[in-house]
Amino acid sequence: MTLFSDLKESKNSFWTRRKLLISGLSGIGAASAAIAVSYQKRRSSLAVKIPPLPEKAEVAEGFNPITVLRDFNYGTLKRENGKTVREFEVVAKSSTLQLNSAISFVSWNLNGRVPGPTLRAIEGERVRIIFHNQDGHSHSIHFHGIHPEDMDGVKPVRHGKSTIYEFNVSPYGLYPYHCHIAPVTRHISKGLYGLLIVDPKKGRPPADEMVMVMGAYDINNDEQNELYAFNGIPNYYRDHPIPIYQNQLIRLYVLNMVEYNPALTFHIHANLFRVYRSGRTLTPNEETDVITMGTAERHILEFSYPYTGRYMFHPHQDFAAELGCMGFFNVLPT
Amino acid sequence: MTLFSDLKESKNSFWTRRKLLISGLSGIGAASAAIAVSYQKRRSSLAVKIPPLPEKAEVAEGFNPITVLRDFNYGTLKRENGKTVREFEVVAKSSTLQLNSAISFVSWNLNGRVPGPTLRAIEGERVRIIFHNQDGHSHSIHFHGIHPEDMDGVKPVRHGKSTIYEFNVSPYGLYPYHCHIAPVTRHISKGLYGLLIVDPKKGRPPADEMVMVMGAYDINNDEQNELYAFNGIPNYYRDHPIPIYQNQLIRLYVLNMVEYNPALTFHIHANLFRVYRSGRTLTPNEETDVITMGTAERHILEFSYPYTGRYMFHPHQDFAAELGCMGFFNVLPT
Amino acid sequence: MTLFSDLKESKNSFWTRRKLLISGLSGIGAASAAIAVSYQKRRSSLAVKIPPLPEKAEVAEGFNPITVLRDFNYGTLKRENGKTVREFEVVAKSSTLQLNSAISFVSWNLNGRVPGPTLRAIEGERVRIIFHNQDGHSHSIHFHGIHPEDMDGVKPVRHGKSTIYEFNVSPYGLYPYHCHIAPVTRHISKGLYGLLIVDPKKGRPPADEMVMVMGAYDINNDEQNELYAFNGIPNYYRDHPIPIYQNQLIRLYVLNMVEYNPALTFHIHANLFRVYRSGRTLTPNEETDVITMGTAERHILEFSYPYTGRYMFHPHQDFAAELGCMGFFNVLPT
Repeated sequence: MTLFSDLKESKNSFWTRRKLLISGLSGIGAASAAIAVSYQKRRSSLAVKIPPLPEKAEVAEGFNPITVLRDFNYGTLKRENGKTVREFEVVAKSSTLQLNSAISFVSWNLNGRVPGPTLRAIEGERVRIIFHNQDGHSHSIHFHGIHPEDMDGVKPVRHGKSTIYEFNVSPYGLYPYHCHIAPVTRHISKGLYGLLIVDPKKGRPPADEMVMVMGAYDINNDEQNELYAFNGIPNYYRDHPIPIYQNQLIRLYVLNMVEYNPALTFHIHANLFRVYRSGRTLTPNEETDVITMGTAERHILEFSYPYTGRYMFHPHQDFAAELGCMGFFNVLPT
Repeated sequence: MTLFSDLKESKNSFWTRRKLLISGLSGIGAASAAIAVSYQKRRSSLAVKIPPLPEKAEVAEGFNPITVLRDFNYGTLKRENGKTVREFEVVAKSSTLQLNSAISFVSWNLNGRVPGPTLRAIEGERVRIIFHNQDGHSHSIHFHGIHPEDMDGVKPVRHGKSTIYEFNVSPYGLYPYHCHIAPVTRHISKGLYGLLIVDPKKGRPPADEMVMVMGAYDINNDEQNELYAFNGIPNYYRDHPIPIYQNQLIRLYVLNMVEYNPALTFHIHANLFRVYRSGRTLTPNEETDVITMGTAERHILEFSYPYTGRYMFHPHQDFAAELGCMGFFNVLPT
Repeated sequence: MTLFSDLKESKNSFWTRRKLLISGLSGIGAASAAIAVSYQKRRSSLAVKIPPLPEKAEVAEGFNPITVLRDFNYGTLKRENGKTVREFEVVAKSSTLQLNSAISFVSWNLNGRVPGPTLRAIEGERVRIIFHNQDGHSHSIHFHGIHPEDMDGVKPVRHGKSTIYEFNVSPYGLYPYHCHIAPVTRHISKGLYGLLIVDPKKGRPPADEMVMVMGAYDINNDEQNELYAFNGIPNYYRDHPIPIYQNQLIRLYVLNMVEYNPALTFHIHANLFRVYRSGRTLTPNEETDVITMGTAERHILEFSYPYTGRYMFHPHQDFAAELGCMGFFNVLPT
């Protein structure tokens, strides 16, 4: 049975991530008693190679979908009263995104990006998210996953206020987070969402890992979407293809946060992917190239490209692709 | 392989349901030669505890979503010519539901409720559904599951007429039923649907079992839904949270009968659930907290809450939650 | 684990298809150096029996959904420089379909049919698709599955031009194909799609095999669908039920190519089916009677009917059934 399959030690299961040092949040201060890091580069010989990044086009101050892609926020490990806490800081604010040459859009976002930061912790850890609301509206962060009622993030945090969400993260898997202030449709479609990755203790095999969040914008408040995007900006990866290496394992963390459409699919060209549903398995549930995802569904998809070249990815509801949910992988020779 | 996994005897597999006596239909008479009951309380020591129910607000004569939740209709066991038949009576009629303070709606329903009665039988049994149409329109009951053509329930039963649907129920699983008279979209969205549970012979482990049917109402006949509901009444469980006990296994029988929207998800807060797709497995297919369900899809979801408190459940297409498909579990200390 | 389960030799795994001879494309010429055939009728004693076909109503010149159903195009095997290639010819053109008594529709199609030809090859083979565009617009064929960039079929082939798509087909599974010229929604909904079946080397157990493609038509170019159809013509199988034999294994290759609706389900009456997701397994993933399929999702469904009679199949989003996506199986005694 897939779900509860043994956590068999994979030959390549050691942590070999590219960037495993503490990546504290800059500009928000704190990070007092950082002590230890569980995410370590244990075997550099197995390291994954990341291609040079393409020219970046800033779409808002400090925000760029190319950076979002492989930017994992490991927070800061703190030691308190003999216990360890992994601490993150997340700030809600408004910022104007240039969605295309004609449309600028006032997003409500977290840490200046849409989607918000990809938080990452290890199964069993205690995590603390310090949430500052610097936006003019009340907001909150509701995390998917197991936690007590007072950590459920459905209570409004007013302008200028802060709150702390703290809980143990278990079991491993993918957990969306988003603002849960009514109307939730509006707070989500304005940009207040992101992904918390809880890694299995033994990790997963080395791979070039990326986060891909499908979102959409209701520009004219008609409760329909006029634009769609991967990682915040319509057509960004169409115009700036994502470089990846041929024959190297790619691990996509895909999340659908599109409101108003009941479901979308995720599709890649010229390949198949293995699906780890909700990130809750270590062995794949199925292999395909099109998978239906309702709002807030998320999966790990793994694949590698045997041939170099440019290959599209997009939802196969092609209206969404035509309205901005479209990108390319640029597969380079190793 | 999940699907045909052995029916291994679980340590707790004996029938220990709270309410296993015959619950005959009141007000319709019959129930002549009842003889035996297969659903028996075999081991009271394993009995599931049900919290005291909250204050009930009647929304129509004799209909209340809190009652619907744990109300399983086991029919009447009859002995005929040496064979046993489990017999149910179902009556179609119209009744006005108070959907909220402003909107009353003429539903077409079965046994005075939306959804209709949760019929329950054991794999391999012969069941007989005596269907009386006391509504002004022609109706039928089409059961999902295996049966001959003349039991398929696609022929109209006119006002004042009755018919009998009789077939063997096998294999175990969840089987929606609904009126199949054209336009089916309208007959379903008016309220003519429900769930038949066919239990595996050895039963499932003891749990606090509940039925949760997602439905929607097209108030103004524009072939779109204006209101959504769990078990018939928009926002009922938001205003009257469902009491459950901490650390006790909950088994939800969830069915999506929403027309006009291609699919919805079902989501619970602050927890994960194990999914038994279509009720056709004894081991879970996956674990998540958001699952996409097209119209007429249905699954068993199992979970228990480790913390007390109030936790939302709703489709994660938040427009549907905002329009009435929203409720709370109130998790009480044991 | 389902996905990579052993290719255990089934007792009935030999190729026993009804029609395994080369079925070259008539009217397009070529088929020069055909040498060998891998699809062979090895054991006629295991042969599947196909009922006599019902009266055919032509809906366009040479196009009939009853024929589409069991018409597998095995192409032509050629021997070139010591290697074998399975070659197909596909022609894009326009033709007017009589969708119902009132509506005729100018389809863009492949080989005069909607869906296009069901191409069929064996895992590991090299296939070549010679594509001629005889339509007034630019078109292409994008195949799902693994292939190099220049075989991805996203470049336009202009009116009167031809191109060749050639690649190895592996692994076994179901691969949709469709025109990928913008707007893709329009090129697909006009009729430019079909299915490539890549059979596992050892084949699958003998069955009466059929292809069922869900499509839809945007008659008035409002980016919504006014009519839905199985295999091209609304309500065709409702008016001309598909004859099948009782107790004989049916293997449906089902593909959803409906644009503008995010997802539909496929449902059969009075039975359950086993699901082989994307055709990528040899053991079923689940058993149900309603399965959600986003655009371009496709599955193998297996079942046999224990009782004779007429049984509907349709998406359970009943609006689509009411608008033409509706049919019957006519189960005949063996």
